[in-house]
Amino acid sequence: MDLWFTEYQKDGFGITIKVKESLFHEVSEFQTVDIIDTEAFGRMLLLDGLVMTSEKDEFFYHEMISHIPMLSHPAPKKVLVIGGGDGGTVREVLKHSSVEKVVLCEIDSFVVDACRRYLPTIAGVLDDPRVDIQIRDGIDYIAEQKDQFDIILVDSTDPMGPGEGLFTEEFYKNVNAALKQGGIMAAQSESPVANKREMSLMYPLLRKAFPIVSTFVGPIPTYPGGYWSWAFCSNDVKPLGYFDEARANEITISCKLYNSDIQKAAFVLPNFVKEIVKEVH
Amino acid sequence: MDLWFTEYQKDGFGITIKVKESLFHEVSEFQTVDIIDTEAFGRMLLLDGLVMTSEKDEFFYHEMISHIPMLSHPAPKKVLVIGGGDGGTVREVLKHSSVEKVVLCEIDSFVVDACRRYLPTIAGVLDDPRVDIQIRDGIDYIAEQKDQFDIILVDSTDPMGPGEGLFTEEFYKNVNAALKQGGIMAAQSESPVANKREMSLMYPLLRKAFPIVSTFVGPIPTYPGGYWSWAFCSNDVKPLGYFDEARANEITISCKLYNSDIQKAAFVLPNFVKEIVKEVH
Repeated sequence: MDLWFTEYQKDGFGITIKVKESLFHEVSEFQTVDIIDTEAFGRMLLLDGLVMTSEKDEFFYHEMISHIPMLSHPAPKKVLVIGGGDGGTVREVLKHSSVEKVVLCEIDSFVVDACRRYLPTIAGVLDDPRVDIQIRDGIDYIAEQKDQFDIILVDSTDPMGPGEGLFTEEFYKNVNAALKQGGIMAAQSESPVANKREMSLMYPLLRKAFPIVSTFVGPIPTYPGGYWSWAFCSNDVKPLGYFDEARANEITISCKLYNSDIQKAAFVLPNFVKEIVKEVH
Repeated sequence: MDLWFTEYQKDGFGITIKVKESLFHEVSEFQTVDIIDTEAFGRMLLLDGLVMTSEKDEFFYHEMISHIPMLSHPAPKKVLVIGGGDGGTVREVLKHSSVEKVVLCEIDSFVVDACRRYLPTIAGVLDDPRVDIQIRDGIDYIAEQKDQFDIILVDSTDPMGPGEGLFTEEFYKNVNAALKQGGIMAAQSESPVANKREMSLMYPLLRKAFPIVSTFVGPIPTYPGGYWSWAFCSNDVKPLGYFDEARANEITISCKLYNSDIQKAAFVLPNFVKEIVKEVH
């Protein structure tokens, strides 16, 4: 059987991937959860038919969302990951020796279970004793946390379905309140190519919640437009305001993408991205 | 009719684009030449069924291949573009006020004619009096040029079909000989995601022809992997060895992507790209 998966990423545009085998397909309370095996990208996690991660290109996303904020903090000890049930972001966070505890707050147990079983290179770290898995809605969880975390990473789906409430002013204000002084939030902020509208709606809300809001960018081959953005927000720390090159070089050894020059280059935005996030040229 | 164009970019992976209308389809002596109209990217030029450029995302490629080398030279007067029959690279080169002459050496007149007719926002500049269009094989043309050009831009197809001879040691040595002292070549060097093998074969050949070989990268949504690379080669100039910020800022005004920070960030390579081009970490 010649089987192809196609994800339509914007009007009249999509990516298509040859499927070797469908390994897992369930409908949870929140979404459809699929694991497929492909020639081009290895095993892939799909939520509601959209690519979340794949064995071969997961490093693009996971290294960027974690190391850029983690290395902007002198000694992150307590980290919260909201979403990210595949475990890839947690794996990168645990590379930092200062980390004592990572809370993974994922709404859907089906995601964690499927990734544990079928994506062990990504989800394998979830058994680490420093990891506390909370199967809960991140919106409720964050509202209960005050002055708790050094780093919060919002590793969410798009602003529709279960991820929708993670793109509101109230949520961002609760994230800010959950951060310790000097804490940093990084949140995936969609594709500057395929999700211009979603991005341009998100940044004004972030600015209502945080005094410091910046953006970093990088390539992700299987995401819409092949090009992604993350918000960097803090009540205290500016991008590159703190940076320990020696610590970055240690992390670099185990990375496929990240290095200390990437830390600086990631915050350099093309003109059209500056316009979307309304950063002055 | 629900018409979709699909380009298979690597084993079992492709992009698919909804087509409003096929505007031009001819088989030239060298390749098939198509212009299609699409919702997502406007009009697109395809050669042998592969996306070359599109109205909506052409700026990613054309701004990068031209401004990075042009702004590494104090006063580029004479520029050669090999390939690039759509005119987009020539258009960007002509934004630099020092330029007196641009030779466009394109093997296939069908490409130039089709783009002039159907892609006027890209090819419109080809009537500029500073432009000298040579419908010739770039391999033959370059062999005749000695000490002629400040900048040479190799805006070629992939290393197969008519573009194949533009990826050889002999060709690169001829390019070096055609450059004036202090001259710079930039050449598209394929996708670090989808064309790892082609890239890793190209860089050793470049090093046989040029003492200075570097790499810069950027996103291109409609190219394989959404992520592209260019070689920066010279017998004299290192990347960022010369840079006039004021001149860069003037160019930035008319650009959708390029700005002076991009000039620096473009040379920052992820670890996996360094490995492909064998640049020491």
